[in-house]
Formats: sequence, structure tokens, C-alpha cells
Amino acid sequence: MVRLDSRDPAFAADFARLLTVKREIAEDVDEAVRAIIAEVVARGDAALVEYTRRFDRLGADFTAAALRVSEAEIEAALAACPAEALEALRLAAGRIEAFHAAQRPSDHSATDALGVTAGWRWTALESVGLYVPGGTASYPSSVLMNAIPARVAGVPRVVMVVPTPDGVLNPLVLAAARLSGVHEVYRVGGAQAVAALAYGTETVAPVAKIVGPGNAWVAAAKRRVFGQVGIDMIAGPSEVLILADGDANPDWIAADLLAQAEHDTAAQAVLITDSADLAEAVEAAVERALATLPRAEIARASWRDFGAILRVRTFDEAVPLVDRIAPEHLEIETADADALSKRIRNAGAIFLGSHTPEAIGDYVGGPNHVLPTARSARFSSGLGVLDFMKRTTVLACTPESLRALGPAAITLGRSEGLEGHARSVAIRLNL
Amino acid sequence: MVRLDSRDPAFAADFARLLTVKREIAEDVDEAVRAIIAEVVARGDAALVEYTRRFDRLGADFTAAALRVSEAEIEAALAACPAEALEALRLAAGRIEAFHAAQRPSDHSATDALGVTAGWRWTALESVGLYVPGGTASYPSSVLMNAIPARVAGVPRVVMVVPTPDGVLNPLVLAAARLSGVHEVYRVGGAQAVAALAYGTETVAPVAKIVGPGNAWVAAAKRRVFGQVGIDMIAGPSEVLILADGDANPDWIAADLLAQAEHDTAAQAVLITDSADLAEAVEAAVERALATLPRAEIARASWRDFGAILRVRTFDEAVPLVDRIAPEHLEIETADADALSKRIRNAGAIFLGSHTPEAIGDYVGGPNHVLPTARSARFSSGLGVLDFMKRTTVLACTPESLRALGPAAITLGRSEGLEGHARSVAIRLNL
Repeated sequence: MVRLDSRDPAFAADFARLLTVKREIAEDVDEAVRAIIAEVVARGDAALVEYTRRFDRLGADFTAAALRVSEAEIEAALAACPAEALEALRLAAGRIEAFHAAQRPSDHSATDALGVTAGWRWTALESVGLYVPGGTASYPSSVLMNAIPARVAGVPRVVMVVPTPDGVLNPLVLAAARLSGVHEVYRVGGAQAVAALAYGTETVAPVAKIVGPGNAWVAAAKRRVFGQVGIDMIAGPSEVLILADGDANPDWIAADLLAQAEHDTAAQAVLITDSADLAEAVEAAVERALATLPRAEIARASWRDFGAILRVRTFDEAVPLVDRIAPEHLEIETADADALSKRIRNAGAIFLGSHTPEAIGDYVGGPNHVLPTARSARFSSGLGVLDFMKRTTVLACTPESLRALGPAAITLGRSEGLEGHARSVAIRLNL
Repeated sequence: MVRLDSRDPAFAADFARLLTVKREIAEDVDEAVRAIIAEVVARGDAALVEYTRRFDRLGADFTAAALRVSEAEIEAALAACPAEALEALRLAAGRIEAFHAAQRPSDHSATDALGVTAGWRWTALESVGLYVPGGTASYPSSVLMNAIPARVAGVPRVVMVVPTPDGVLNPLVLAAARLSGVHEVYRVGGAQAVAALAYGTETVAPVAKIVGPGNAWVAAAKRRVFGQVGIDMIAGPSEVLILADGDANPDWIAADLLAQAEHDTAAQAVLITDSADLAEAVEAAVERALATLPRAEIARASWRDFGAILRVRTFDEAVPLVDRIAPEHLEIETADADALSKRIRNAGAIFLGSHTPEAIGDYVGGPNHVLPTARSARFSSGLGVLDFMKRTTVLACTPESLRALGPAAITLGRSEGLEGHARSVAIRLNL
């Protein structure tokens, strides 16, 4: 954990170093992934089954017929879920759906004084693939966050892939798939699953876009199939930035920092405060809380290697720092949280006030928890309904409006050396 | 040029082949681009100047001081433009601005029955770099189409880079930059320009996102810097699909096919018709029109290698074919053009009726001409205002609403093995 102080002459250099610290170890799996994709393209189900047997340690009884998770299995999973967890998932699904419903875009069409009609139409993607990691990173909340915006967008075919290491499949993940309207589920993961979604096999029809988190193999595969299909962002390790003044509760702040740090040793939790007392109290509170945290080993490593406490003279100083960090999650626990939030340009999601811990947003707040990491909130947004739709513009000229506009188009076409463009207009105007 | 007929038993296979034909020759410049980017990162302006001298054939008098195009040069360029072309550019700029102004998104915030306030805020990117190719592909219309949506979005810093091979810079490109509110112009191109925009040099401050078309070097550089900055789509060769019935004018259709084909030998122009007579007449009209087209050599190669005429029994058959092709540009010249257009899911831009040649959309229609190519209209949209903005979600709980929602978040956190998440909520509720 580093401590920076804006009064320190070295602050600017130290802050710049904090911004550029590399938190991800790049695993070089690109060549292996290329080969896996080529095999799935060439041999379809046969390759998919072979890789799945090998990577998920499944036996010869795992065949193409077992790729798809049946309706009966999904029903059985629902029945096997603890009632309390299922109820919490239902609450979350309802709130996520309500929030995203407000994101549905409007079509537009207007006819101008010349008689030209121009506008656009939004349509849902025809199909989407949702990658869900297996094992301990198999999060039902992620299924909701990825699948519900697709349903709200009106995507008619949402396909989920999830590996089942040693044959184990989290029933809550299947429950989440059911609650969020997923149409097909396949027990397959890794680069082979991404290849199947992108190119199709006998069993898995291809999709138009692939979303969802995954390990280095999945990320490399998504980068490779981009173009053949759309992909969402490639997510990096999670991060939180907390702005808190001297009135904040240090134990609450410490809990929030550790909720981030427990994700991953590469996660990052940062506090910016104008209070030396709070800075000190939070540091002590983190140590106390770590003593009883089940994932203390992970959280301690993240806090040690990437944690930071920055002292500023005033929160005016903090605004440009936040914009440069462009945090995935920004908690603001200051007296003027709402006003301060409006001065921030770059953040994935903002959590206002001391009663809005980021974990509420991870599960039941309503906004999406798939958010831009690694400073990409400077140029991108969290997942939403628009990620599952696309816009087609529509233009219609009348003979009269073409006569009004045509000469300018002819002039510009000729000035760009594109006589064919000019002629396609001129021929209609007998010019 | 291939002729397909949906009555033919081989049609499905032939159509599938048409979809997968590779029109781009992949130039392997990735290693060279990697080296250029590394040099610009390490040596800044010095590397930028060296590469620019070499690739644009400039002398030793080209120094860092000459990188930025001065206000006086821009004023001189404006004065040097033909009045007619300048007037046409102004008309285009005004129409593009008016169309995109309607794309400005709305912020949203709502408080639900529990007292949770949730919503989002759109903000403009802090800075954008616009790549403009040099030489004959230096199109002023592209400057308008890329820069005006950024201005409408409210981007406070729009930077243009354009190479000047042999020192030549198209005055209309500078005029377009001025008309569309570009703030800074640098005479630099290729991978070195992309590197400068992404990482910054002494003279060029870095940007948050890079947009605009370019050659294989520019495309490879954009792929490499993605993550450090945002990028727009990587555009492939242009394409048009025309649906026309027996009442269409074959000479007009031929002109539109060739307006596309003249772009590039890798461009693609396709006609789908229900009329054998029209198919035949268009084929003859294309030959006639080629005879006098200045760029006939390019257009002829495109039409020969990638052109196609598909005959269908009815336009009902055409709808799924269009969706599979997912054309960048779709012209519909049939009796029921508007109704037919509403049945199409996948197209970048639609041009309705016989008086809306695609070239009108290239210049003065108003909608953007930067559109998804190579079937990517299945999952992406043309350039627009949203590409220069990003959305930050905002969530605020009251003590009471946290009490209502908290237990479900705690349950889900624990079910995902993330006790730290659960505790950050529980500690606020004394649970």
C-alpha cells in the first residue's frame, strides 16, 4: 500500500506512477488459442468434445449429446437452490430489469424543409453468446448482469456457455440463466466455447456477439474472433476509488476497500481523503478487518501491492485525479457527494453517500456491474441495453429534394476524384 | 461478377460462398508497427519527425516545430479552396450537424418505492484523435463525418492527424477541419501518428479515443493501442447491396453499383432483383457506364471479382439474404420500399426509393457515412454521437433503502463466496 500526499513535491510523479502500474500478468496463450479455434472451425463438435474432456477432466461418456444442458437439468438446479438465495436472485433480476428497461433507445425520423426524410431505427442483435466462467469464479450475479440487458433489448436468442470442471455446475448459475431468459445453455468453456459461439458447430449455432468475463484464454479467443462476431470489452482486474471526508466511518470504508481487494490479488482499492485522521483510521481498520476475512490472503496481497491512500488538501484537488484514474467504481462519501459527483467526467459507476457500498451495486442496486476497468472509463461505458442493439440509419429523398441537394453532392464527389459518385446523382437529374 | 438464382438447387451453397469470400489481402505489418509505436513512446517528437521525414519523403527542414499546422495555414487553405466546393462542404456540415444533434442522449434518474435513486449521466470524452489519410484517399467528407459528431457530443479537444506525402496537403481537408470545429491539426500519419495520439509526445498531447479510416499500418496500430485508448471500428472495403424490382431504371442502378465499385478493387456491389429483365439490363448498363468512367480500371476489377446479381422469386426471399449479408449500404428501389425496409434487421444504412442514391448519403444527406462493413452490421452501428460519449451510472441508497435491499446483497455475496462483499453491507446494518 502506498501513501501519497498532494502537499509532497514528489506527488505528481508518484501519482503518475500509480496510474501506470501494471496489475495484470499477460499470459501468452495466443498461439494455443489460435490452434484451438482452428480445430473447432475444422472439426466442430468433435473438437469441442475433445477439448472439453481434456480441460474439464471429463470422461469418454461426455459426448456431443451432453453438450447442451437440458430443460430437466435446469429445473432440477432450480429445485436444488437454497430458497433464500433464489429469492435474492429474483429480487436482483427484477431490479436489474427495471433499471435497464429505461435504457431502451428511441427511433427517430424527421422530414426537413427540402423534403428529405432522415432518421434511424434500433434493432436487437439476432443472437448473443454469454460466457460464464466455471469453478469459484462462476457468479450467478454476472449471468443476470449480462443476460438481462440482452432480454430487455429484445435479442431473440441468448446462448450461455459455462465450463463444468470435473462435471460440477453451480445450480445458482443455471437458476440465474432461467430467471434472465437465457434460451440455450452449453457445458463448454475456454477458447473452444468462444470458437463454437463465433463459428458454430453441429450442436451450437453461431451468434452475432459474445459477451461475458473469462480468463486469459477466453480473453485471447474473444480478441481473435472479433470481426467474425462482436465482443464486449475485455475486462481487467476490478478496482474501487473512494472519496471520503473526515466524517466518514473508517470501518465502513475499510470494508469497502476489502470487498474490492478480495476479488483478486490484482484488484485495486484506493482512498482519497482530505483528512489525515481518516487516512490513519482506515489503515488501522483495514488491518483489523483482514484478521477475520475468509479471503484475507487475496485481499491482503491486493492491498499490499496495489492499495493506496491519497491525502489531498481539498476535494477540488481530487476531481482531476479521479478523472485521470477513471475508476471502474467510485464511492463518494463526503458532505457534498452529489455536487462533487457532477464534477467527475471519468468513472464507470458512482455510489453516492455512506449508505451505498459498492457491493449493493454488484448485486441488487439495478445498474449493471459490468464496467470499464484499467482507465477505460475515459472512453467507454458499462454494459447496457445498447450493447445488444444496433442502429440503422434511413434516408429518403424525393425527386425535388434530390434536385436541391444533388448539385452539392456532385461537387463534392468530383472534388474527391470520385466521378462515379457524382454520376450516380447526376444521371437522376439529367445533369 | 457472379449470377445467382434462388431457383437454382445450388443457390444456398453459392450464396454461402458469396458471404465468405475474402476481399481483403492481409498485409503483415504488425511487427513493423510494434516497433514504430515503441520508438514513439520512447523518443516522442524525435521519432515522430524521423518517421514522418522517411515515410512522407520530407527533408531535414521538417522539424518538431513544423508538426502542428498553424492557424495561418488553415486560413490560407480556406482562401485557396474553390468557392463552389467550400459552399458544398458548408451545406454538408450543416446537414450532418442537424442530423447528429438529434442523437444527443438523455440523462436519467429515478427514485423507486424503496428510496433507492438510480440513473445515469452521459459525458463527452475528454479528447478525441481523428486520423485522416493522405494522398488521393484524403477525403474532406470523412473529416466532417468523424469530427462533427464529436463536436455535437461536446468533446472539448478534437485533434486531427493527416500525413502530407511530399509535403502536399489537400486544402479542402483543412477547410473541413475548420468547418467541423477541429481544435488541433498535425501533419503526421501512419502508425507513428496513432502512437503519438495514444501515448503523447512533447508536441502532441494524448487523446482518449482514436477514430477515422486508414491503411493497413493505421489499422494495425489502432488494434495495438486499443486499451490504452478507445478506437472506432476497423473499416473494411466498402459495399452496397441494391434491392430493385422491374420498375427500376437499369442505368441508375448501374451508376449506383459503380459508385461503390470505383472506391477500391476490393469493394463489393451486389444487386438482388425479382426481375430477369432488370438483371440483364443492369448488366449491360454497367458495361456501358464503365466505358466512360475515369476510375473504370478499379471499378471493373471490383465488379468482376466481387460483383453479384442475385435473382429471387419474391422479395420475401430477399429479406433473410439481406440479413445474412448485413450490408454496409442498402438501397431499396421497389414499389414497397418503406415497408420492405422495416423487415430488415441487419444493415448499416438504408437508402429508400429511386431518388436516394447512396452517394447522397456519402456527402449531404445528414446521416453518417462511417458504417459497419464486412457483415459487422449484424452487431454494430455506424458512427454517431454516442461514440464520443460515455455513460456513468449513479446509485444512491438511503439508510432505509439499504436496510431493505441489504439482506439480499449479503445472501448473494455469501453464495458467491465473497464474504467481504457481504460484510461491507452488513457492517452498515449492524448485522
